Amino acid sequence: DGRRRLPYSDPATFMAAPYRQNAFGTLDGLKDLDVALIGVPMDLGVTNRSGCRLGPRAVRAVERIGPYEHVLRVAPMGMLRVADVGDVPLRSRYSLESCHEDIEAAYKAVVAAGVIPLSVGGDHSISQAILKAVGEKRPVGLIHIDAHSDTAGEYEGSRFHHGGPFRQAVLDGAVDPRRTLQIGIRGTAEYLYEFSTDSGMTVVHAEEVEEHGIRRYIDVARQLIGDGPVYISFDIDSVDPGFAPGTGTPEVGGLQPREVLALLRGLKGLDIVGGDVVEVAPQYDATSNTAHIAAQVLFEMLSLVALREKPSI
Amino acid sequence: DGRRRLPYSDPATFMAAPYRQNAFGTLDGLKDLDVALIGVPMDLGVTNRSGCRLGPRAVRAVERIGPYEHVLRVAPMGMLRVADVGDVPLRSRYSLESCHEDIEAAYKAVVAAGVIPLSVGGDHSISQAILKAVGEKRPVGLIHIDAHSDTAGEYEGSRFHHGGPFRQAVLDGAVDPRRTLQIGIRGTAEYLYEFSTDSGMTVVHAEEVEEHGIRRYIDVARQLIGDGPVYISFDIDSVDPGFAPGTGTPEVGGLQPREVLALLRGLKGLDIVGGDVVEVAPQYDATSNTAHIAAQVLFEMLSLVALREKPSI
Amino acid sequence: DGRRRLPYSDPATFMAAPYRQNAFGTLDGLKDLDVALIGVPMDLGVTNRSGCRLGPRAVRAVERIGPYEHVLRVAPMGMLRVADVGDVPLRSRYSLESCHEDIEAAYKAVVAAGVIPLSVGGDHSISQAILKAVGEKRPVGLIHIDAHSDTAGEYEGSRFHHGGPFRQAVLDGAVDPRRTLQIGIRGTAEYLYEFSTDSGMTVVHAEEVEEHGIRRYIDVARQLIGDGPVYISFDIDSVDPGFAPGTGTPEVGGLQPREVLALLRGLKGLDIVGGDVVEVAPQYDATSNTAHIAAQVLFEMLSLVALREKPSI
Amino acid sequence: DGRRRLPYSDPATFMAAPYRQNAFGTLDGLKDLDVALIGVPMDLGVTNRSGCRLGPRAVRAVERIGPYEHVLRVAPMGMLRVADVGDVPLRSRYSLESCHEDIEAAYKAVVAAGVIPLSVGGDHSISQAILKAVGEKRPVGLIHIDAHSDTAGEYEGSRFHHGGPFRQAVLDGAVDPRRTLQIGIRGTAEYLYEFSTDSGMTVVHAEEVEEHGIRRYIDVARQLIGDGPVYISFDIDSVDPGFAPGTGTPEVGGLQPREVLALLRGLKGLDIVGGDVVEVAPQYDATSNTAHIAAQVLFEMLSLVALREKPSI
Amino acid sequence: DGRRRLPYSDPATFMAAPYRQNAFGTLDGLKDLDVALIGVPMDLGVTNRSGCRLGPRAVRAVERIGPYEHVLRVAPMGMLRVADVGDVPLRSRYSLESCHEDIEAAYKAVVAAGVIPLSVGGDHSISQAILKAVGEKRPVGLIHIDAHSDTAGEYEGSRFHHGGPFRQAVLDGAVDPRRTLQIGIRGTAEYLYEFSTDSGMTVVHAEEVEEHGIRRYIDVARQLIGDGPVYISFDIDSVDPGFAPGTGTPEVGGLQPREVLALLRGLKGLDIVGGDVVEVAPQYDATSNTAHIAAQVLFEMLSLVALREKPSI
Amino acid sequence: DGRRRLPYSDPATFMAAPYRQNAFGTLDGLKDLDVALIGVPMDLGVTNRSGCRLGPRAVRAVERIGPYEHVLRVAPMGMLRVADVGDVPLRSRYSLESCHEDIEAAYKAVVAAGVIPLSVGGDHSISQAILKAVGEKRPVGLIHIDAHSDTAGEYEGSRFHHGGPFRQAVLDGAVDPRRTLQIGIRGTAEYLYEFSTDSGMTVVHAEEVEEHGIRRYIDVARQLIGDGPVYISFDIDSVDPGFAPGTGTPEVGGLQPREVLALLRGLKGLDIVGGDVVEVAPQYDATSNTAHIAAQVLFEMLSLVALREKPSI
Ligand SMILES: [Mn+2]
Ligand SMILES: [Mn+2]
Ligand SMILES: [Mn+2]
Ligand SMILES: [Mn+2]
Ligand SMILES: [Mn+2]
Ligand SMILES: [Mn+2]
Ligand SMILES: [Mn+2]
Ligand SMILES: [Mn+2]
Ligand SMILES: [Mn+2]
Ligand SMILES: [Mn+2]
Ligand SMILES: [Mn+2]
Ligand SMILES: [Mn+2]
Repeated sequence: DGRRRLPYSDPATFMAAPYRQNAFGTLDGLKDLDVALIGVPMDLGVTNRSGCRLGPRAVRAVERIGPYEHVLRVAPMGMLRVADVGDVPLRSRYSLESCHEDIEAAYKAVVAAGVIPLSVGGDHSISQAILKAVGEKRPVGLIHIDAHSDTAGEYEGSRFHHGGPFRQAVLDGAVDPRRTLQIGIRGTAEYLYEFSTDSGMTVVHAEEVEEHGIRRYIDVARQLIGDGPVYISFDIDSVDPGFAPGTGTPEVGGLQPREVLALLRGLKGLDIVGGDVVEVAPQYDATSNTAHIAAQVLFEMLSLVALREKPSI
Repeated sequence: DGRRRLPYSDPATFMAAPYRQNAFGTLDGLKDLDVALIGVPMDLGVTNRSGCRLGPRAVRAVERIGPYEHVLRVAPMGMLRVADVGDVPLRSRYSLESCHEDIEAAYKAVVAAGVIPLSVGGDHSISQAILKAVGEKRPVGLIHIDAHSDTAGEYEGSRFHHGGPFRQAVLDGAVDPRRTLQIGIRGTAEYLYEFSTDSGMTVVHAEEVEEHGIRRYIDVARQLIGDGPVYISFDIDSVDPGFAPGTGTPEVGGLQPREVLALLRGLKGLDIVGGDVVEVAPQYDATSNTAHIAAQVLFEMLSLVALREKPSI
Repeated sequence: DGRRRLPYSDPATFMAAPYRQNAFGTLDGLKDLDVALIGVPMDLGVTNRSGCRLGPRAVRAVERIGPYEHVLRVAPMGMLRVADVGDVPLRSRYSLESCHEDIEAAYKAVVAAGVIPLSVGGDHSISQAILKAVGEKRPVGLIHIDAHSDTAGEYEGSRFHHGGPFRQAVLDGAVDPRRTLQIGIRGTAEYLYEFSTDSGMTVVHAEEVEEHGIRRYIDVARQLIGDGPVYISFDIDSVDPGFAPGTGTPEVGGLQPREVLALLRGLKGLDIVGGDVVEVAPQYDATSNTAHIAAQVLFEMLSLVALREKPSI
Repeated sequence: DGRRRLPYSDPATFMAAPYRQNAFGTLDGLKDLDVALIGVPMDLGVTNRSGCRLGPRAVRAVERIGPYEHVLRVAPMGMLRVADVGDVPLRSRYSLESCHEDIEAAYKAVVAAGVIPLSVGGDHSISQAILKAVGEKRPVGLIHIDAHSDTAGEYEGSRFHHGGPFRQAVLDGAVDPRRTLQIGIRGTAEYLYEFSTDSGMTVVHAEEVEEHGIRRYIDVARQLIGDGPVYISFDIDSVDPGFAPGTGTPEVGGLQPREVLALLRGLKGLDIVGGDVVEVAPQYDATSNTAHIAAQVLFEMLSLVALREKPSI
Repeated sequence: DGRRRLPYSDPATFMAAPYRQNAFGTLDGLKDLDVALIGVPMDLGVTNRSGCRLGPRAVRAVERIGPYEHVLRVAPMGMLRVADVGDVPLRSRYSLESCHEDIEAAYKAVVAAGVIPLSVGGDHSISQAILKAVGEKRPVGLIHIDAHSDTAGEYEGSRFHHGGPFRQAVLDGAVDPRRTLQIGIRGTAEYLYEFSTDSGMTVVHAEEVEEHGIRRYIDVARQLIGDGPVYISFDIDSVDPGFAPGTGTPEVGGLQPREVLALLRGLKGLDIVGGDVVEVAPQYDATSNTAHIAAQVLFEMLSLVALREKPSI
Repeated sequence: DGRRRLPYSDPATFMAAPYRQNAFGTLDGLKDLDVALIGVPMDLGVTNRSGCRLGPRAVRAVERIGPYEHVLRVAPMGMLRVADVGDVPLRSRYSLESCHEDIEAAYKAVVAAGVIPLSVGGDHSISQAILKAVGEKRPVGLIHIDAHSDTAGEYEGSRFHHGGPFRQAVLDGAVDPRRTLQIGIRGTAEYLYEFSTDSGMTVVHAEEVEEHGIRRYIDVARQLIGDGPVYISFDIDSVDPGFAPGTGTPEVGGLQPREVLALLRGLKGLDIVGGDVVEVAPQYDATSNTAHIAAQVLFEMLSLVALREKPSI
């Protein structure tokens, strides 16, 4: 009847996607979806400032993402069956361990349903649980955009924390380190991340991007990944705090958002089997820019899913 | 299975109520509800700072409202069938007139369905359209909590603006001025509001509340309203800007939130037939306190609906 | 032609008063005025956080002050010839001493022109220089609303600082301590202010207002002041930081704005010969509430000037 | 007398220019000016977040713009007769249509007086009304810096909105599309802007600037414009939200401020006949960076006016 | 040499107390102290917004607390040997259980050294561990100022969380419920706190304070406590969010800071054996008012310790 | 015992260095140190917005700086004896002159003790006093990163102000202008800084960095400085306000943080004899990004000190 939704109306969902309530815990909650947009409001794995448990709500609150990606020339919502399926149910907000179990179980259901998960954290430890599901059948390639390599070992007695998911994912056989690119890396804990190079990952530091330009690394990424399945994990702290202050472990001297966009757009055609956007802590995001970048990256991931050339799922 | 929703999980709805998508525009969208929680994201009627079009989203984003009202001793969500039915569809964000038509039409559907509307604006001009529906069959009493009487006439060529809804509502026959209490009134435009006293409304200024205490005015309110139907209109600028800065026409020297709560709780048993919470402009709400008070007041209204002694609908 | 100014249009002046450019430094810059609204953007006298040099601009930026005072029932702009005459010219932003000389000179010109000065600081040390002009001919009474008595002696080698203006004013013969009320006093430096009681000032602490109510102290004030000339000095830190965070030396447990308004309105009829509003530091004023209260108090002062019963000037 | 104005003193005007009160509505209000700095506090044309009605005041509040442009080596205030003439008087804040009529009328008076208008909005729809005056006699060239092409047609029943001014300006014969450069374009509504390329405009996307560098597009601009008259329209959302968060429809991945400055400085010598800076919404500008960039761009425009080589007016 | 510390100079410690580095873990780290000011930067026990792990740093950053308490007429730093002993060392930031063990161990060392602990949290669950030490020898009385009774049982599988410390403390024999006053209580989870009344605690709701005035409850408190040992636990969410927004589970309609100050000052002479200030989450504290109130309350506690009439330790 | 400090625990010191209390004023307060981290909380020398007196505290509050510099491959804290020695004691907060005397005296003690000072201001005028000590024996080279050349003469009657330290340092014989690089320069006061080029300094503007890349200027810097002693002075306003809004005289179009880092890292091996980070005004730093960059730059300076190849001290 000529009446359209305003960008700021109604309960906010990821990219204004339809909301599928109670998707988890029912048998057919994920039926008939190509892509599930999932929140994981858990921040027990951080080393410094907490707060990214509110990341999913902050990303949902962003107005005006999509419908069109003007560089990739695609309107993905029209090509895929997509829903915001709400947040992973967590039985206890006091136990990092039980949260990891709950996340793993939820994503195994998603993968079992043949649905591609695009997730919003939550701290980066969640990728460990997600990859247990996504990479269960075969190791996947990884595009990991972050200020930190996140391949440290057990810390303060916990196997779960946001500094270690990708070590675990490799040890779990869920990620193929030779098909892994880590980019945007910098900061003051480099010595903790030897596992990255030891295991064969390709690590590109932020200052290399500044020196050589992002476009060189699109080629690197495409060559590494080839046409096998690939997961994209985007830690918002990869971006310079000038653009993305709302995160718990910021590092000066990061990527520009337009470099991140160029990199992601450069992945057009690859076989994306999942992705996540993590570490958005809106308490530190005075302008909501951080959530905005996160939402835009989520949209780029969705666009890439729509444009897969040889989809494996 | 022992898993509960976290206060900060999933798409945010008013007081965490279930979300009924597409409630408007379908024949049975409002079926089987006692109370509809409705957003009206429209701010074309303001005289000063715009921004309250984002009020509904801001009030939804508040965590931890309810389930229990400890003074009234009621858990209203368990007693009533309640849903967040989304926002009123508006055909044009550029026309104050057409927005008013759309609001009136939507609320006529709500009233026709026998559902009590509790609304979140939006600017106060929306009450004019809402009352056209709620007060269509017979004039209703009015508890109007505001810094301003909002009974001015046409202004700058417009019959619709946030300084005039209650004059129109009286002229429309929707509100009974002798069963009307305006409370919290103050500020610099008093001379515009002669209609209030001329028409027989009872006007209580903020400084009177400071001098005599709020409890005196609970009695005044109950006497005025009696056991006929009553609508509650709560303009957040009634509250002192120290507590509620996020609004477009703040006035120094307002009510304390606990005075507002005491007043509302004092209305227990009355025949509430609708209510609204308006003028929340989150851009000016650095702490989200304003939205928080608004959400709490919405919850008080819902509690009052649950406790009506002689409900007319 | 039917077109009125919007509250947010045009360069902002105090209470939207007309702007008289270059009022200082020309012979007839202050001619034909009853009241001059004057900014004093100087904060070299603070003991803690600087920033109130931006106070005058912040108070000007407040929208919608006046035209009507609904308790005093007066529209003062229509009764008095009022202008925003800009800020006191200061020859050096590096010398507290020379600033004091410049302020004193400027106010002597204002007083000589028979104009009542209402000022916005700047730090409270400015009152010392202003009172040298206003109280030059005879000592004036003083209503001093503040968290601090500001009657300390020389500090760190300086006679000028925001903790001492009223000691100096008494010593200068500009203020009559027996016709002085200090109200709102509290905080952690009480021991510095023995001069207040020693000299005969009446000191009312914030907790006394909380305990006994503000209205008791209206009587005290009126009795002290009588019908002689009186100056009103309002330090925004008198108000509780919950309402007025934007100041350099906040003290928990202060006055409510509505208590300040009640007190000022209670002074109706007195012979106000000047007033100031000081210590507004907008950098700490996330909501602009502090500036708003300051602007409202300035308006109350103007209203009181309009309502003087036996004006001495 | 050796006393200079402090950057933060006195009522704030655009770039601290002298304030000419009541410039509109009097016969000779614009007399003897080369350039009029004009505010247009109107935001009824936005599609998303309102608030830029406060843009003019926010840009005025910026301290320390000028007097010298160190790259262009010019101090324009000394070469031109410039004044802040206040804001366009608007008869109704409730009617987008009447605002457009009022703006058009005001600018026709400016153009008739032979004065070059440099404006601060307000939403981008105002350019449509301004260009009706500036381009009335002959179509002008256009340098349009924006995230959006703003060449959409009627929307939700309104010919006036911030997504369409340049389509209308072309249809009005006020802008020559072949002498038009749109730069900074990106975002999710590309499909609405086919008119840009269809009509012959040159459209440069943000990612092209990132890839090739801004200096390439200075040449493009100079070639397109030649030595005919040109208008510059600067939408602050062209700049990346990391630098300019204070706007209603931000888009990730925009221009850097230093690229905008380089582009503008590259236009030295062109025949600038007017310019505007729009879409500054200070409610979203936690650091005032957005207003700061806007004020600097206004200063660049003024500098370019001072350096015109073959001025047509 | 005449040079004093500025309020904003040097590393910030609680109330500018001297900093005793490495107080924990060495044998004589707490030697010769009357009072230890201790931070507990742990927020794993919250139910909603995390962030109060940064509470201790925020309270330290407050300038200008003390040296004089003007109502109690005491300068406690001069009467007691006081130090900021840093924060409790925590072996893992990922385990709520191990944090509780570490806190308990640290406070047992404090108590063993005969030192009175005044603590800054951290979430309220820490009081449970602290009271295990403070109340180990005999149950203590409790003045508990909070919006919540915090006497719920195990939740989501955890005995430790900020909604239950005082149930545990009673069950541990550390707190005497008949000598316990809970005041400021309100909010939406009342039904969880039956243990309070069942065990014999005196519970005063916020609306009772509003209705009857705080001074009535000073008498109640003194009668309950008598001259036995008493612990004071102050949850910042007892205060209305208008004054103290920086907390994780705010509740509309709380105490005014001046009521809290009056209550605490009313406890003069009691045998205070410890105290804590918890739930300060600076991420939500745009003005730093919340931290300011917390620091002032800490100072009141210190003043009360200095004024004990029959000290048991 | 396996317990480590959390990044957010304990009183905050510069880069979590140990705190040496009372370092100034005692004979051996600086004994056995290689590097002293010193705060200078003084902002009386600013021309516009005050507030950087709180800079040292803001930089201390930054979490997670170091221990490792991943590009320089150094962990400087392990190689040098470093302490936060607190802030320079200042006898009067009201006298710019006496502050300069106090600063000079303190730094002469530092230099006499053979300790390298790395300082955090405060306004840039402090460099003048610091260099009187550091360059007393022989002129030093200077890497000066700033938006402003800061070589103006006396201003408003004061030799001390933040626009002139390096003119004075050259005139004092403390800085060798031919071994001086000023980089990042831009803005509206260029005409005040002729002394820079007249005296032989090399001045690189921000737009040159944007055009040619920062790496070109590393070579320029190394050639200018050679292997003589060099001081690094970093004014945070060199960085674009998008990244570093928290400063008093921001200028649009500045350096990116990653360019600053690249430049500093390019100075590896030089004989750094001191450095400062100035003009951090946290009141304007909504995200704390500004303080974060400042802390990171301080860490880069410390890393460079650790890597000196031919240290002169
Ligand atoms: Mn990560
Ligand atoms: Mn990371
Ligand atoms: Mn209203
Ligand atoms: Mn109102
Ligand atoms: Mn004062
Ligand atoms: Mn004061
Ligand atoms: Mn535009
Ligand atoms: Mn745009
Ligand atoms: Mn609690
Ligand atoms: Mn609580
Ligand atoms: Mn400088
Ligand atoms: Mn500078």
